[in-house]
Amino acid sequence: MRPEEVKALLTAVQERTTSVDAALRKLQEVPVDDLGFARLDGHRELRQGLPEVIYAEGKTVEQIGTIAGRMLETTTAPVLATRVSPDKAGALRSRFPEADCHATARMVVFRAREPSAMTGDITVVSAGTSDLPVADEAVVTAETFGAQVHHVADSGVAGLHRLLGEQQRLHDSDVVIAVAGMEGALASLVGGISSAPVVAVPTSVGYGASFEGLAALLAMLNTCAAGVVVTNIDNGFGAAMFALRLLRKIHKA
Amino acid sequence: MRPEEVKALLTAVQERTTSVDAALRKLQEVPVDDLGFARLDGHRELRQGLPEVIYAEGKTVEQIGTIAGRMLETTTAPVLATRVSPDKAGALRSRFPEADCHATARMVVFRAREPSAMTGDITVVSAGTSDLPVADEAVVTAETFGAQVHHVADSGVAGLHRLLGEQQRLHDSDVVIAVAGMEGALASLVGGISSAPVVAVPTSVGYGASFEGLAALLAMLNTCAAGVVVTNIDNGFGAAMFALRLLRKIHKA
Amino acid sequence: MRPEEVKALLTAVQERTTSVDAALRKLQEVPVDDLGFARLDGHRELRQGLPEVIYAEGKTVEQIGTIAGRMLETTTAPVLATRVSPDKAGALRSRFPEADCHATARMVVFRAREPSAMTGDITVVSAGTSDLPVADEAVVTAETFGAQVHHVADSGVAGLHRLLGEQQRLHDSDVVIAVAGMEGALASLVGGISSAPVVAVPTSVGYGASFEGLAALLAMLNTCAAGVVVTNIDNGFGAAMFALRLLRKIHKA
Amino acid sequence: MRPEEVKALLTAVQERTTSVDAALRKLQEVPVDDLGFARLDGHRELRQGLPEVIYAEGKTVEQIGTIAGRMLETTTAPVLATRVSPDKAGALRSRFPEADCHATARMVVFRAREPSAMTGDITVVSAGTSDLPVADEAVVTAETFGAQVHHVADSGVAGLHRLLGEQQRLHDSDVVIAVAGMEGALASLVGGISSAPVVAVPTSVGYGASFEGLAALLAMLNTCAAGVVVTNIDNGFGAAMFALRLLRKIHKA
Amino acid sequence: MRPEEVKALLTAVQERTTSVDAALRKLQEVPVDDLGFARLDGHRELRQGLPEVIYAEGKTVEQIGTIAGRMLETTTAPVLATRVSPDKAGALRSRFPEADCHATARMVVFRAREPSAMTGDITVVSAGTSDLPVADEAVVTAETFGAQVHHVADSGVAGLHRLLGEQQRLHDSDVVIAVAGMEGALASLVGGISSAPVVAVPTSVGYGASFEGLAALLAMLNTCAAGVVVTNIDNGFGAAMFALRLLRKIHKA
Amino acid sequence: MRPEEVKALLTAVQERTTSVDAALRKLQEVPVDDLGFARLDGHRELRQGLPEVIYAEGKTVEQIGTIAGRMLETTTAPVLATRVSPDKAGALRSRFPEADCHATARMVVFRAREPSAMTGDITVVSAGTSDLPVADEAVVTAETFGAQVHHVADSGVAGLHRLLGEQQRLHDSDVVIAVAGMEGALASLVGGISSAPVVAVPTSVGYGASFEGLAALLAMLNTCAAGVVVTNIDNGFGAAMFALRLLRKIHKA
Amino acid sequence: MRPEEVKALLTAVQERTTSVDAALRKLQEVPVDDLGFARLDGHRELRQGLPEVIYAEGKTVEQIGTIAGRMLETTTAPVLATRVSPDKAGALRSRFPEADCHATARMVVFRAREPSAMTGDITVVSAGTSDLPVADEAVVTAETFGAQVHHVADSGVAGLHRLLGEQQRLHDSDVVIAVAGMEGALASLVGGISSAPVVAVPTSVGYGASFEGLAALLAMLNTCAAGVVVTNIDNGFGAAMFALRLLRKIHKA
Amino acid sequence: MRPEEVKALLTAVQERTTSVDAALRKLQEVPVDDLGFARLDGHRELRQGLPEVIYAEGKTVEQIGTIAGRMLETTTAPVLATRVSPDKAGALRSRFPEADCHATARMVVFRAREPSAMTGDITVVSAGTSDLPVADEAVVTAETFGAQVHHVADSGVAGLHRLLGEQQRLHDSDVVIAVAGMEGALASLVGGISSAPVVAVPTSVGYGASFEGLAALLAMLNTCAAGVVVTNIDNGFGAAMFALRLLRKIHKA
Repeated sequence: MRPEEVKALLTAVQERTTSVDAALRKLQEVPVDDLGFARLDGHRELRQGLPEVIYAEGKTVEQIGTIAGRMLETTTAPVLATRVSPDKAGALRSRFPEADCHATARMVVFRAREPSAMTGDITVVSAGTSDLPVADEAVVTAETFGAQVHHVADSGVAGLHRLLGEQQRLHDSDVVIAVAGMEGALASLVGGISSAPVVAVPTSVGYGASFEGLAALLAMLNTCAAGVVVTNIDNGFGAAMFALRLLRKIHKA
Repeated sequence: MRPEEVKALLTAVQERTTSVDAALRKLQEVPVDDLGFARLDGHRELRQGLPEVIYAEGKTVEQIGTIAGRMLETTTAPVLATRVSPDKAGALRSRFPEADCHATARMVVFRAREPSAMTGDITVVSAGTSDLPVADEAVVTAETFGAQVHHVADSGVAGLHRLLGEQQRLHDSDVVIAVAGMEGALASLVGGISSAPVVAVPTSVGYGASFEGLAALLAMLNTCAAGVVVTNIDNGFGAAMFALRLLRKIHKA
Repeated sequence: MRPEEVKALLTAVQERTTSVDAALRKLQEVPVDDLGFARLDGHRELRQGLPEVIYAEGKTVEQIGTIAGRMLETTTAPVLATRVSPDKAGALRSRFPEADCHATARMVVFRAREPSAMTGDITVVSAGTSDLPVADEAVVTAETFGAQVHHVADSGVAGLHRLLGEQQRLHDSDVVIAVAGMEGALASLVGGISSAPVVAVPTSVGYGASFEGLAALLAMLNTCAAGVVVTNIDNGFGAAMFALRLLRKIHKA
Repeated sequence: MRPEEVKALLTAVQERTTSVDAALRKLQEVPVDDLGFARLDGHRELRQGLPEVIYAEGKTVEQIGTIAGRMLETTTAPVLATRVSPDKAGALRSRFPEADCHATARMVVFRAREPSAMTGDITVVSAGTSDLPVADEAVVTAETFGAQVHHVADSGVAGLHRLLGEQQRLHDSDVVIAVAGMEGALASLVGGISSAPVVAVPTSVGYGASFEGLAALLAMLNTCAAGVVVTNIDNGFGAAMFALRLLRKIHKA
Repeated sequence: MRPEEVKALLTAVQERTTSVDAALRKLQEVPVDDLGFARLDGHRELRQGLPEVIYAEGKTVEQIGTIAGRMLETTTAPVLATRVSPDKAGALRSRFPEADCHATARMVVFRAREPSAMTGDITVVSAGTSDLPVADEAVVTAETFGAQVHHVADSGVAGLHRLLGEQQRLHDSDVVIAVAGMEGALASLVGGISSAPVVAVPTSVGYGASFEGLAALLAMLNTCAAGVVVTNIDNGFGAAMFALRLLRKIHKA
Repeated sequence: MRPEEVKALLTAVQERTTSVDAALRKLQEVPVDDLGFARLDGHRELRQGLPEVIYAEGKTVEQIGTIAGRMLETTTAPVLATRVSPDKAGALRSRFPEADCHATARMVVFRAREPSAMTGDITVVSAGTSDLPVADEAVVTAETFGAQVHHVADSGVAGLHRLLGEQQRLHDSDVVIAVAGMEGALASLVGGISSAPVVAVPTSVGYGASFEGLAALLAMLNTCAAGVVVTNIDNGFGAAMFALRLLRKIHKA
Repeated sequence: MRPEEVKALLTAVQERTTSVDAALRKLQEVPVDDLGFARLDGHRELRQGLPEVIYAEGKTVEQIGTIAGRMLETTTAPVLATRVSPDKAGALRSRFPEADCHATARMVVFRAREPSAMTGDITVVSAGTSDLPVADEAVVTAETFGAQVHHVADSGVAGLHRLLGEQQRLHDSDVVIAVAGMEGALASLVGGISSAPVVAVPTSVGYGASFEGLAALLAMLNTCAAGVVVTNIDNGFGAAMFALRLLRKIHKA
Repeated sequence: MRPEEVKALLTAVQERTTSVDAALRKLQEVPVDDLGFARLDGHRELRQGLPEVIYAEGKTVEQIGTIAGRMLETTTAPVLATRVSPDKAGALRSRFPEADCHATARMVVFRAREPSAMTGDITVVSAGTSDLPVADEAVVTAETFGAQVHHVADSGVAGLHRLLGEQQRLHDSDVVIAVAGMEGALASLVGGISSAPVVAVPTSVGYGASFEGLAALLAMLNTCAAGVVVTNIDNGFGAAMFALRLLRKIHKA
């Protein structure tokens, strides 16, 4: 509730067009939509600038479907689910035939914005074939909200010269998302040759002493290239959401 | 070296205004200024958009002074040093009387940009008194490069209502930097009530099971507020550098 | 054996109504009921104020059934089993048709106290849908022993305003149990807005750098809200047992 | 602000004894006392039931003195500082001659409640001589707020029979605080022989593989005695604050 | 090869009953029986006092059978395999009908010494039902080599009084093996009430912050009862082997 | 691109046998063969001295087959895949009947160099039967590139005398690869008795506190035998690749 | 209190030579000598077979002196203090001129048993010069209680042949204590060539990835030589206490 | 003792030029020079190819001097000490005026080989000014044994183009040592652009989540450039010793 709204409410009380009790209720009331197992948060778009997204892990197809259905009815925003297993994705598509299933990204998009509805562009750079699920999660999330995304795959540090060929694009993008497992050196490299903000996403790709992504995470946090920040391991979704916050600032500035 | 420059060089070779050997040398040549113990990287501003900064830890006053002196002579960019102990700061001020010493931030600014030389504003939110050195490192770094910074100190999660009073500012800022030790919950809170991009900085403040900042770092990486990214522990400088990359994108778009 | 009992025994020896050998045996004797694979501890209720509970993980249906059967016969206290897989729960219900199976909580209640047999009330606050199994374990445990429980689900830190709506209840409850995974910030929030004792339960919910609940555990141990304590990861049962110890103190004081 | 207060304010607006703008300001206003380097939070006692305490680590004598002075003037609550080094304690006593300095507990009490101002009693059990600073921090904190505290020192698990002699007291106390380093088994023992709520405090005492208290912390979190909860390593203060929350519930019920 | 043997060999060379080359070969020769996938070490019993044991994990039934068969033929020592899955145990019994399969201990004994062939006795104390596999591995191993073993099961620290009833036996045993998961406090308790050498075996039993036995391991290493030593997590076999080394010293002294 | 090649290109530009645009394209052009899901790096052999290898984990049989097929067509170098599951290996052999499948090593060799095409020899020493997959990965990799390999299996530290029998070979080899799990002491032993360069490979073999190879890794990094280096856990492939780099230096020197 | 004593007491009650109240007090009474800051445990020698030892870390010279003085008066057992800094040792020697100060071992022996008062012998093997303080702590502790100790210093794994020269002694000793930091391989070696029980003591010697002794600790726990057990890092004292428990069994059997 | 020597000895026995007892003593005898606190190992050069080096940490000046003096007398090999503090270095130079003290490398060289006495060359690449002590330790060690070393300092990954200028040298060197802290990406870069064997040395340089070099260590172990191996954190000495083993193989082949 913004100050003007509170002021308007108080004025209505003063002018007795609203009773004290009604105003009290209004001040206490929070727009929450309760589905029994999950509360939908209608105010979130206002508050955080982006609508709620369905995290499918640990939810049944029934629960995902109910939430998605309600969101399709009550909002006009994009509706999408992350971490959807192939089984659940199949079941959801029977129920929502118009939904798009992205196998590698493990996502289902029930409703997207128009492509390029949001001005600005994002470059996603990923290191190896095994990093694709995480990179694609970032790509699909950003595209669903209407951003333009360019994906440069298979550009790990061992193939340094490949990356150098994309140097201009890395400078010009509004934001770069660097996705890598193993030693995570890609983030330092991209940070060193680009002037754009770089969001690094460590992945759990690797074996032995990668300790499920810990090696890449620590490496990215310790990058000697100033101006690189980090998300949780395998969190392509989070990187995209951060990039979208940024695009809204850039293109509404 | 940008493509146009290479093309110009090749054309000069073709037109024989440049010899093959001279062109070869030019293609191999890298603009590095060698001081014996450290190489200055004159091209970095072009490449990364921001000049090199002197990391003072483990360097002698003599070394810091020599690098700073050379940078003051050869560039027009801001010149600053981070992690300067009080002793070194004192010694540097005798040599550079015009330098500004920031005690809490442990920084020395040899030359800054004009205040507000850079459009855009940053809000730094910090949790407790003990987090001030890290928060101030972010503030001084950003201001030295000409950004407008607003610092909301002592706003930890235990004082939740304090933070709510700043809700509007947190929405309107171009970027928010949230600095906290202990359980690091401040990042989640700020991410939940703001639509701006949020950069979280864990600090090593806390005792026992904070394990020198590990608790805050893990908490921030796991935030359930989508769109929050993280820097290394105590890395206020890195958060500011990332914010400056954002400001350049936002206000030059 | 309490001092009065020992005194009575000694008096009986003195008065020769008990022989020395019988007294010696009595002093050495411990009321343990041996089932071969597990000893039932009939004295525990006297000693700890709460009867033994069957931890089903790693036990066969046969073993659980035998222990439960013996406890139903020999005591009048509640009899319940935790960490029961769906398979085992089904098999146990065929054998004990009157038992209640709680699927989400993974518990089977063979015999409960009367609802509200114990004065006092507990509020359980949980962060997300994935935290429900742990929260429900706390709820069912407390209710089985006769406590009144109010469960506020899906109230994570990203939905801060939701929690604020429950502020009065959080003050008035005898004890609050806060259940959260990911960054575990819920504990700090609840600790900051409530005057009741707060027991925090970290869950293994989260991915990547949550490291199976370590992130939430460390965050909760480091909370800057004074007066918050912590249980093991996913230990909803333990939090309820602690709360029950407390209720007995409050309502017998 | 409680609902009744908001209702009273709205009624005043309706009755025009308060203007709309004044009411708006009141709703936005937060009672924070700003000292430049730290904000005092006058509402905390209402909100959390206990006033703010000065955490002295990383604060100068000047800062501690200023905060203490202000709190003595503006409140009637106890005023105390924790983690005060001997040097700072000496300096503070010259400025506040009436203050009590507790050397082992590393605390300074500027103003305490009457002894036993708060009904209820706490038993603190500690394992060895090296655990005394942490145990004393709990003792002094609780006593400063008016609780009755009984301290059973040097009762580690190797001296099991010692502890058994205190069994009755451990049953009858409102709450037991168990303080131990090394393997932290004291918490399990106390939890096994007492029916009271038990708060375990791991300490950093030990060498080698105690890893600064990690061994005791993990042991306490994994206790097989149901109904034991844990605080951060060395956090005697936090255990006492939690115990005080309990006492308020128990004796106001 | 013991000094006397070398001397004998040298004398034989001097007396020309052995050629130089034969002596050289003898000095270089190591009694290793090569089966292709595993070398049997016939000298180990001489060297370490106990024969080699078959660690079945990662070996096929075929491989285990071949090794066991060869050992039965070429030695008279006990032959046993540890970590045998139920499937493999079944298959081995068809091939070796006289073998004993111990289900809980996951062991197969192809040939044992006479019961009580070895003077001396071992007491194994274990904490809970879930610790039985590890405790039984110790029991069966020790018995297979002819030791007398007494097993006190289900005697965890929560049931302190149970353990006190066994105090005399714990004093009189040649060695005590204490097996416990969770917080591992059993080792400290046994160490505190017994004068025998105590070998502690942490188990991976527990959930959450037990981190697969790490909590119990650290607790046992940090025990404040002097004279307790520790084996690897779940290593009941290793504890028994160490106990057997002790028995050989005690009863051959 | 080597200096001579650049010089030749520049000369061609000067002599107008190459146009400026063609030269520019050539300078920018990187020889990458794009298969959609993976880019083949034809220049790697020139750059690193060894061709790319197919890491099969996380790739489909289809993808592996396509990459292998393309590499067989476009190069003359060895073509091999690591970490191939038995299922995938079977499927690949139907498609490539001439391929060699190495079950223990989990590798498929599509085309190898002539045996002993590369002068020089490698000794691989491995500790136990469970370490064979990692040791074999090293053996097969090295042999595929034409090196002579001698494998001394089952030579763990408990069988110290076995190792001593191979002392001469360990001195004479160009490089020794020591593969061990558990406590990893084999590396120290080999380092102590050999003058050759020793590459230690920790394996994830062990249970309990081996923590998936961490124990062996740390032990090998801390070896007190100077001149031993370490690869990632289970990385037999990496050790062989390092050995091959070395052989090329030794035999081309 | 042993059964016979309880029986005697009960008989006295029956015979009315002891009153009921006196018997009750006697049963409750624990022979603890309270010095204010530490309770002396006179029964420990009966209970554990060895008297209490003064752990000097964190105790003042005054406290150590008072405890030692009391123990010298009230017992006839050895009196010793461990972890005594050089300063404290000096101060203690002025007060107890007859005390022996062992600088490397950081111990003060106020009263020892006759040398070789206890039959049986211990061999201590240590790896390097830096491990001497820990090894000497074991040596001095064992000798103070009257055991014969042989110390083989500087016998690390790199000097394998050195150790082989001591093979006979390692077989014949009652118990072997192996002290090593860095990679801790000494324990495996000794365990492989000796048939005696081996107690391994990891030390914090090493740098980098030894992580203060963690590397050696894990290696020793994972030794592939069956029959090796481990103490806490740097805990030479604990290893000696275990050895003494063992000697008492061996030579009283 | 090599086979030929043993054969010669046996022949002497046969020919009675050596007695049986003398031969036995010779076989048992190990050339160890005992200085009381440290045993010199005269055979090591034969066994490992390189002589023993004095690790000064934890040794007194007196001890270092005695060892060095003895080594100068009894060998002709280089004599050097590592990890020498400035104080100790000063004291040693007074006693050995001809010794060379290397301040940054913290080394003292008592006697070196002729420069370039050993054919072959090593390139050391280091990332930043703070990594110099570790890099210099490698440089001085290698040079002391007569190798040619080229040091490319201050070439971290942020200054990627700097490194590219050294590409030819990195190809041609016999071995490359890459020294870096922070995220340790330098190793991957060097491994990607060079065909030489690469030894990576992680340093403890960095702050926060570098965890004293753990981040760099893990990154280097996980490098996606095949053919890179790793030493302990800060172990420049170990990398040089390994490189010297390589050089001996390369140039004696």
